[in-house]
Amino acid sequence: MRKVPDQWLSSILLSMYQRPAVTREEIIRSTLLNGGSASQALRYLIDSGTILKIGELKSKAGRRRDVLKLNPEAGYFIAVDLETARIRYALTSLVGDIRFRWEQELDFGQGPDISNLLFGIEMVRRNLEPWQQSRVLAVGIACPGMLEDDRLVTAVNLGWHRFPLLDKLSEVISIPVFLGASCRAYVLAEQGVGSARNTANCVYVELGKGIGAGIVIDRRYLEGNHHMAGEFGHITIDPSSDSQCNCGKRGCLEALASISSIVRRHAKLSGKSPSDRNGAHVSEVFEKARRNDPVALKVLDTVVKAIGLGISHLVLLFNPALVILGGELLLGEDLLLPGIKRELANHLPAFFGPPPEVIVTSLGMDIGLKGCALLAFQNSLASTDSLKKLTTPLTEAIVM
Amino acid sequence: MRKVPDQWLSSILLSMYQRPAVTREEIIRSTLLNGGSASQALRYLIDSGTILKIGELKSKAGRRRDVLKLNPEAGYFIAVDLETARIRYALTSLVGDIRFRWEQELDFGQGPDISNLLFGIEMVRRNLEPWQQSRVLAVGIACPGMLEDDRLVTAVNLGWHRFPLLDKLSEVISIPVFLGASCRAYVLAEQGVGSARNTANCVYVELGKGIGAGIVIDRRYLEGNHHMAGEFGHITIDPSSDSQCNCGKRGCLEALASISSIVRRHAKLSGKSPSDRNGAHVSEVFEKARRNDPVALKVLDTVVKAIGLGISHLVLLFNPALVILGGELLLGEDLLLPGIKRELANHLPAFFGPPPEVIVTSLGMDIGLKGCALLAFQNSLASTDSLKKLTTPLTEAIVM
Repeated sequence: MRKVPDQWLSSILLSMYQRPAVTREEIIRSTLLNGGSASQALRYLIDSGTILKIGELKSKAGRRRDVLKLNPEAGYFIAVDLETARIRYALTSLVGDIRFRWEQELDFGQGPDISNLLFGIEMVRRNLEPWQQSRVLAVGIACPGMLEDDRLVTAVNLGWHRFPLLDKLSEVISIPVFLGASCRAYVLAEQGVGSARNTANCVYVELGKGIGAGIVIDRRYLEGNHHMAGEFGHITIDPSSDSQCNCGKRGCLEALASISSIVRRHAKLSGKSPSDRNGAHVSEVFEKARRNDPVALKVLDTVVKAIGLGISHLVLLFNPALVILGGELLLGEDLLLPGIKRELANHLPAFFGPPPEVIVTSLGMDIGLKGCALLAFQNSLASTDSLKKLTTPLTEAIVM
Repeated sequence: MRKVPDQWLSSILLSMYQRPAVTREEIIRSTLLNGGSASQALRYLIDSGTILKIGELKSKAGRRRDVLKLNPEAGYFIAVDLETARIRYALTSLVGDIRFRWEQELDFGQGPDISNLLFGIEMVRRNLEPWQQSRVLAVGIACPGMLEDDRLVTAVNLGWHRFPLLDKLSEVISIPVFLGASCRAYVLAEQGVGSARNTANCVYVELGKGIGAGIVIDRRYLEGNHHMAGEFGHITIDPSSDSQCNCGKRGCLEALASISSIVRRHAKLSGKSPSDRNGAHVSEVFEKARRNDPVALKVLDTVVKAIGLGISHLVLLFNPALVILGGELLLGEDLLLPGIKRELANHLPAFFGPPPEVIVTSLGMDIGLKGCALLAFQNSLASTDSLKKLTTPLTEAIVM
């Protein structure tokens, strides 16, 4: 059989990820392949079962066009969303549908052992039949904090400083492992299966235990030098503030508006002793604010102002068409979102025109897992070995 | 003669712009063309006189390699740097060497008439011999303020609001006209002939009558939605400030640190009446600070803090390897630069590592003109007509 170039296969597979049903003509339009190349590659992918025919469209002239989709069972990924308080694991289909989950709680300030991670990965992988296990293409992992050159993780909340996570895992896991910063995974999920599918320039802002941003420009993720751009949580919002940040500075956005800073500040202004604060949850502050508690309202006013100012910097510097907010802070969406939008508008000059749309993610808690699966998918398409696995007919055993 | 694809020609010409002398092998490495295509395209460009052989290298094995450069006389550009107080015009060679200059002063707050611009363009164009005039490929114009979709200019200091400059000029000028935001031209010049030639991620910060940033990520200029990213001058640095900005907001970086704000603030703190301030120049404030005048030192302290904080936002969000400063404020480089670097370092978390290099542009007042010439060069390479002009042998008259 004539070999189809990897490049043709990967550009078709990538273009089909965002679309649940697609025709050959739409694939040609979005990949810029010529008709002959596209037909040859599609025939190969359909014959191998990587792409499924799911129907037929009939044009007025009577011509029939196949409707195609990716076969979700052609490959699997293991997604690992490494949060600061827990690790979420999932086994996903080729297109990021979650098939099985597993969670581990973490002690604050302490990163997981490699053996914990391997155990979690095994817990989800074993949910596949043996013949499917050979079709697991890669592990995609979202890391909090700062990820240097896609291998070294620095996360204050995990106690990791330039921890060589990729090397440690690659030593013992036989399939490829890919790391991405959490906010990269989040914005990738929005691009692949969320609200940013049709947006070339967008920003995802994580508002939770940490604060961060994933920035997409011209459909490409902003990497920066050593892949470390987007340290949104640590821009100084208030140079005169005495709010201490985990990073060692004062007045960072994260020190003013993260979940723990809200809980801490509310407790302090309410005159509670440090021991009373343990176990307090941000939702209690939100509840009090909803009942017009003046201390809670004052705390949230600071939060809204800090986040609005921070987002205005992103908007003025990147000019995204869409800003997507996510994270646990959105439990207080009713209390926070109107103020954030108002502050954002106040910090934009009149000549700039109306602010971009600001919305809350629709992907919920699975956003990180979906992003890990897409990260693994994208990276797998660049590998000849993975493409070979992916296009091995389902009826054949894979021997690599 | 076999037609050489435009794409091959333009990628070779583009790769040679940054290099005064280059071998065929280096061209192949930087364009990713295969050897056969590169040889065919180079032969065509050498035969037409677009590229010159300027020497020979001999390898140890005795093989000879031609050393090549762009022929500066193969084409010309007209560069127009539209500042807020004057317009600079230049006739440049193909590689941006300035051959002739012209300047017009502007009244503050009033944009130039189209007829002024046409007059200035004609003043530089007429310095070519008639046979050279047909080789002027394009006009490149750098615009202050905000440029929307590469055609509409909004510049408060010129009194322009969405002024259709491109359409107005294209109606009457027979060669192509290309507009770029000033900071785009500046950072382009740094990439083409300045300090950023070998840097994939860099930021140029203009500190003058206006404040702005040109941002290059992965060797590409950051455009944003409608090509309007990088509104660095109007990020809010101090929400509590009463410093009014031209844009209508308060506390913008430009309101705190532009030249006019320095002059104004110094006059106010010195108790001068508004009429005394006219004609005052920022260099007087710098002179006073050098003689330890406390008012001047206090004013500059605010400036240093505002600029350092602003640049820390750029560094944390984009993570450039290099920050280049330019503009009239650098007349006070000795007074400002150490403080800006100190403030920048203070606003970066320890885990982020050392700050990027911060330097002052080496291109001086010609930076805008050089950038316009490169803007025109890049855009011309995308046009079949311009490539045809450029590759018409110098001995033949061009009839288009």
